[in-house]
Amino acid sequence: MDHLISARPTAVNMKRAGDELISFLTQRAEQPGVTIQGLTESVIQWAESLLEKDVKDNRMIGDLGAQHILQTTGITGGVGIMTHCNTGSLATAGYGTALGVVRSLHALGRLSHVFCTETRPYNQGSRLTAYELVYEKIPATLITDSMAAVTMRERQVNAVVVGADRVVANGDTANKVGTYQLAVIAKYHGIPFYVAAPSTSCDLSLPTGTSIVIEERPSHELTDINGVRVAAPGIQVWNPAFDVTPNELITGIITEHGVFKPEELKDGLSRNP
Amino acid sequence: MDHLISARPTAVNMKRAGDELISFLTQRAEQPGVTIQGLTESVIQWAESLLEKDVKDNRMIGDLGAQHILQTTGITGGVGIMTHCNTGSLATAGYGTALGVVRSLHALGRLSHVFCTETRPYNQGSRLTAYELVYEKIPATLITDSMAAVTMRERQVNAVVVGADRVVANGDTANKVGTYQLAVIAKYHGIPFYVAAPSTSCDLSLPTGTSIVIEERPSHELTDINGVRVAAPGIQVWNPAFDVTPNELITGIITEHGVFKPEELKDGLSRNP
Repeated sequence: MDHLISARPTAVNMKRAGDELISFLTQRAEQPGVTIQGLTESVIQWAESLLEKDVKDNRMIGDLGAQHILQTTGITGGVGIMTHCNTGSLATAGYGTALGVVRSLHALGRLSHVFCTETRPYNQGSRLTAYELVYEKIPATLITDSMAAVTMRERQVNAVVVGADRVVANGDTANKVGTYQLAVIAKYHGIPFYVAAPSTSCDLSLPTGTSIVIEERPSHELTDINGVRVAAPGIQVWNPAFDVTPNELITGIITEHGVFKPEELKDGLSRNP
Repeated sequence: MDHLISARPTAVNMKRAGDELISFLTQRAEQPGVTIQGLTESVIQWAESLLEKDVKDNRMIGDLGAQHILQTTGITGGVGIMTHCNTGSLATAGYGTALGVVRSLHALGRLSHVFCTETRPYNQGSRLTAYELVYEKIPATLITDSMAAVTMRERQVNAVVVGADRVVANGDTANKVGTYQLAVIAKYHGIPFYVAAPSTSCDLSLPTGTSIVIEERPSHELTDINGVRVAAPGIQVWNPAFDVTPNELITGIITEHGVFKPEELKDGLSRNP
């Protein structure tokens, strides 16, 4: 369990679920007449209820986010969304967070187009998000991470919606590297920037994002593609997997309990423990 | 010649050199006693003098840019530079434009580090710039295009220096896609943003950058790497090869005649025809 939790230090929801499972199992193990088979069945039930809640929360995030974006942009037709990395069925228990918002807009017939970034170096956008969008027949275009600004200027992008590995008390958000600069670029273009995250990914125990530990991954993820070297030999590489977007760049955080401005997040979630 | 000029419509220096060569050859061909061999030799001489002037101009750009950055940043030690795409010996006649500035800083012992972006989708940064930097033993780190903002925030980046395919009269600059967003991000971080370009890449006949035709390239450049499909099948792609950075984001344009603010470019170059 420690290995699982330490595998992705930014993802507070994994630590939280791990802690809950250990606490749940400890309680059960102390009950009279407990058996290994009984404990195993309890774990399966616990996991199934977690899955069910995750999917339900994702759907709520999708619906609340879609309604909020439609209301606040005031657009009467379809809206254009830009997203980053993968936040869909392949990254969550199902439906998705940021991609849940996209799915809900599409289900309402109010999505004009999605732009998904390639998301270098691991290409979650071009491999996973693009796959989900094609599979669901959602109108979508793949761009490189470097094309985000020109796309915002020259195509219809009414909101940027991304996921989160961890949102802290003041709204600062750790997410896939590149999120921070998308937020900077969105602000320059006057485009609202949303983080879609279940409350389990919100860590109100951390006051700001400055102390979030960022995982640095091996250089070959950047220099090699499918095992073939694409970068010049000998070059040094910096490969942080995440970055922290400061709250000042975030328009709203879309949770299953509502859409909160960064400064409203702590109170909003405290009302829905 | 028309084919060569039309191959890269953004690159005004290619059109200009093509026009000059045609005009030069027309003049020569009209002279009495002209022979095919004489004309051929003239063309070779013309090309060699063009090469010599290009390298000389590049060195001047490098030296003027390096001096300007050292003076204006007021940094007493080494400066950190971020660059995009390839602007070195492999992209110019020799020495380079933006990479010429880097070379000059390094020769002065005043370069602390260079960050070069991968430059998707064609990877000129990771393939070519990284190669030149390793070859010249210049301290350098490769990042993905998505890491530019976090690098500016968390590493020493004192200036961003890029090249140009075309700089127009008001300073608007067409360059490799991703340049525009680097400029947006640099502005957010208060980091000066320079375009290094010979006067032959400046097109004072165009008042603004809005009418520059941007080449859109095939989708496979983005979806395939070394002939292997990396993106989900069926996804649509937008692949503009360049973007236009508006003058308001540009601190200075480094030419062989001096470093000009965008609004000073036209007068500055008119004094040096």
